[in-house]
Amino acid sequence: MPPRDDPSPPASGAWREGDDAGHRLFAGVGDVKLESGQVIPDVRVAYETWGELNDDASNAVLVQHALTGDSHVVGDQGPGHPSPGWWAGMVGPGAPVDTDRYFVVAPNVLGGCQGTTGPSSAEPGGRRAWGGRFPRTTVRDQVAVEALLADTLGIDAWAGVVGGSMGGMRAVEWGVTWPDRVRSMVLLATCAAASAEQIGLSAAQIHAIRADAGYHGGDYYDAAPGAGPHVGLGIARRIAHITYRSELELQERFGRRPQDGEDPLGGGRFAVESYLDHHARKLVRRFDANSYIVLSEAMNSHDVGRGRGGTEAALARVSARTVVAGIDSDRLYPLWQQELLARHIPSASDVQVITSPFGHDGFLIETGPVGSLVAAALG
Amino acid sequence: MPPRDDPSPPASGAWREGDDAGHRLFAGVGDVKLESGQVIPDVRVAYETWGELNDDASNAVLVQHALTGDSHVVGDQGPGHPSPGWWAGMVGPGAPVDTDRYFVVAPNVLGGCQGTTGPSSAEPGGRRAWGGRFPRTTVRDQVAVEALLADTLGIDAWAGVVGGSMGGMRAVEWGVTWPDRVRSMVLLATCAAASAEQIGLSAAQIHAIRADAGYHGGDYYDAAPGAGPHVGLGIARRIAHITYRSELELQERFGRRPQDGEDPLGGGRFAVESYLDHHARKLVRRFDANSYIVLSEAMNSHDVGRGRGGTEAALARVSARTVVAGIDSDRLYPLWQQELLARHIPSASDVQVITSPFGHDGFLIETGPVGSLVAAALG
Repeated sequence: MPPRDDPSPPASGAWREGDDAGHRLFAGVGDVKLESGQVIPDVRVAYETWGELNDDASNAVLVQHALTGDSHVVGDQGPGHPSPGWWAGMVGPGAPVDTDRYFVVAPNVLGGCQGTTGPSSAEPGGRRAWGGRFPRTTVRDQVAVEALLADTLGIDAWAGVVGGSMGGMRAVEWGVTWPDRVRSMVLLATCAAASAEQIGLSAAQIHAIRADAGYHGGDYYDAAPGAGPHVGLGIARRIAHITYRSELELQERFGRRPQDGEDPLGGGRFAVESYLDHHARKLVRRFDANSYIVLSEAMNSHDVGRGRGGTEAALARVSARTVVAGIDSDRLYPLWQQELLARHIPSASDVQVITSPFGHDGFLIETGPVGSLVAAALG
Repeated sequence: MPPRDDPSPPASGAWREGDDAGHRLFAGVGDVKLESGQVIPDVRVAYETWGELNDDASNAVLVQHALTGDSHVVGDQGPGHPSPGWWAGMVGPGAPVDTDRYFVVAPNVLGGCQGTTGPSSAEPGGRRAWGGRFPRTTVRDQVAVEALLADTLGIDAWAGVVGGSMGGMRAVEWGVTWPDRVRSMVLLATCAAASAEQIGLSAAQIHAIRADAGYHGGDYYDAAPGAGPHVGLGIARRIAHITYRSELELQERFGRRPQDGEDPLGGGRFAVESYLDHHARKLVRRFDANSYIVLSEAMNSHDVGRGRGGTEAALARVSARTVVAGIDSDRLYPLWQQELLARHIPSASDVQVITSPFGHDGFLIETGPVGSLVAAALG
């Protein structure tokens, strides 16, 4: 089970945790009214920054993590950071997001499990965690919280908003909701609205977690160590991980090779099974199952056109210079989704197609071509 | 839970069940030694036939069902047949497999749950079902049992062997193992060896079933009604069903439409979720979870090249006139797998590519073009 989030209510404003928390920052953004009308009181946002904000606050770049990411875009694993940065090399002095020029902000998303208010945070008026009672949130709610964070930090407009996958969903929602607050965007391997297949795949994963006898309706934080819905979360991850990669990559890398020392015909595993088991275990150690459900449901809610006269009308609002890029082997966010974004965002480039064997995960792995696109977009 | 298979040991030879069993036939094929060396005693095969065997037994066609299929290729739902025929219109007088000319045999597979010996059959020496102790079987074991059935029926060689998906795995194993017993083959949406992705997807589904608290290590047949691993099997089916269809079909058919009367943003479902729920429920009613595991593991074992000097050497043994066909939108058994079969089977056609929006399920749905190919291959 991931460490339970600190249930103490946040103070208002921003503060810095001690050295042992890896310089994560926290901001209290107050009560947040959700799209559903429900209110989450005293929302706290965990975030990290790199570089310095300039005098007119015109050099801020927002970097948006994906489903199981967090604020730790670059840097080592350590206290407060259960995994190393998910985009190594992309942020730093001279990097594509150049911290000699830009002030970079990366918040953990609303509903997440790495410091921002989520299902593992204390329910209002009690010491018990929200658990399965955490309100249903949308990508727009996630972005509303980020806008409050920007206000707190004195950032009126972003020089750039950069995100892939669920991070790209937030990026495009920023561009549509606050055209005046986004000067450039990079939308990677993402979409204007979750597709039927994306919804179905997420739904199957959510079923797998909820079906785990250890899920207990989401109230598993006080269970004995090892008693949470680990098996269900692991199954969700196995399904997801296959969709994140490409068939060809899996075939070239694993084929029908048995796992070392095991005989698949005698009850042992193929190497590809061991690989999926590894990724399942790894996620279970670092990620909260309730957050996985909350964020998957938020992704399923994603539709920039909802209540705005449809996708085209919504995307027409964007004024940011926009680079849209996809991965040729991505079967989870196929290129038609990026083509649709590029066609309807007035100031968008043609889709930049990145050739990669890694499928959807290409947006995380192909930091060479992705970095060039990001640098050019910000430049 | 599906009805528990009749645990009474079969007599030797073939017999016909009463009218209320929809004319299913049964054959006792004796003890079967598996590839692993283990022996399953007194194996019984359920099968159906259409047409008449001619005097020199030269007009027999073997039709092979896929993972959750059975002997009921065509015909109504009814006693002994929990679902209508899975290939309506393909077998009958004047149909692509023309019963005015051919004697058609369709057995339920070893390890299945529609009459042939499988996990729901009685364990030797007891009245308890095999459950999770059913031996690990391979596609070659499935085919070995079918060869014993052919012997019982006096069929020395098949005029044709026709199968898609797992049925195609058995078909190609027939052609490789007994070149002299197969005069023509139709291999639909299938492969010479299960790929890394196919293995990984099956593995995730098997995990979902085994993780169900109702699975009880496979001993759930005596559980209260409704207490089997239905949730786990349903999750497996949701995953599988998405892979059986195409992304485009799901998008055009469902998109982001809410299920009638439900609000996805308020805890309700999208139409695509309801569709997957429906297919999950439907499978749970008619199929045994242990059989799903046994057959999935057998599919993962599939590799015509194992112990035969590799794929090319194995396929070079085939002497049957062979038609290989694939579906352009099939992402579970992509066209490269059929191209590989066609390239290395000496007497194979070029791959016949069937254009269909239905993905892998196209081999079941597109009976027009599939029927033409089958008729031509047999003709």
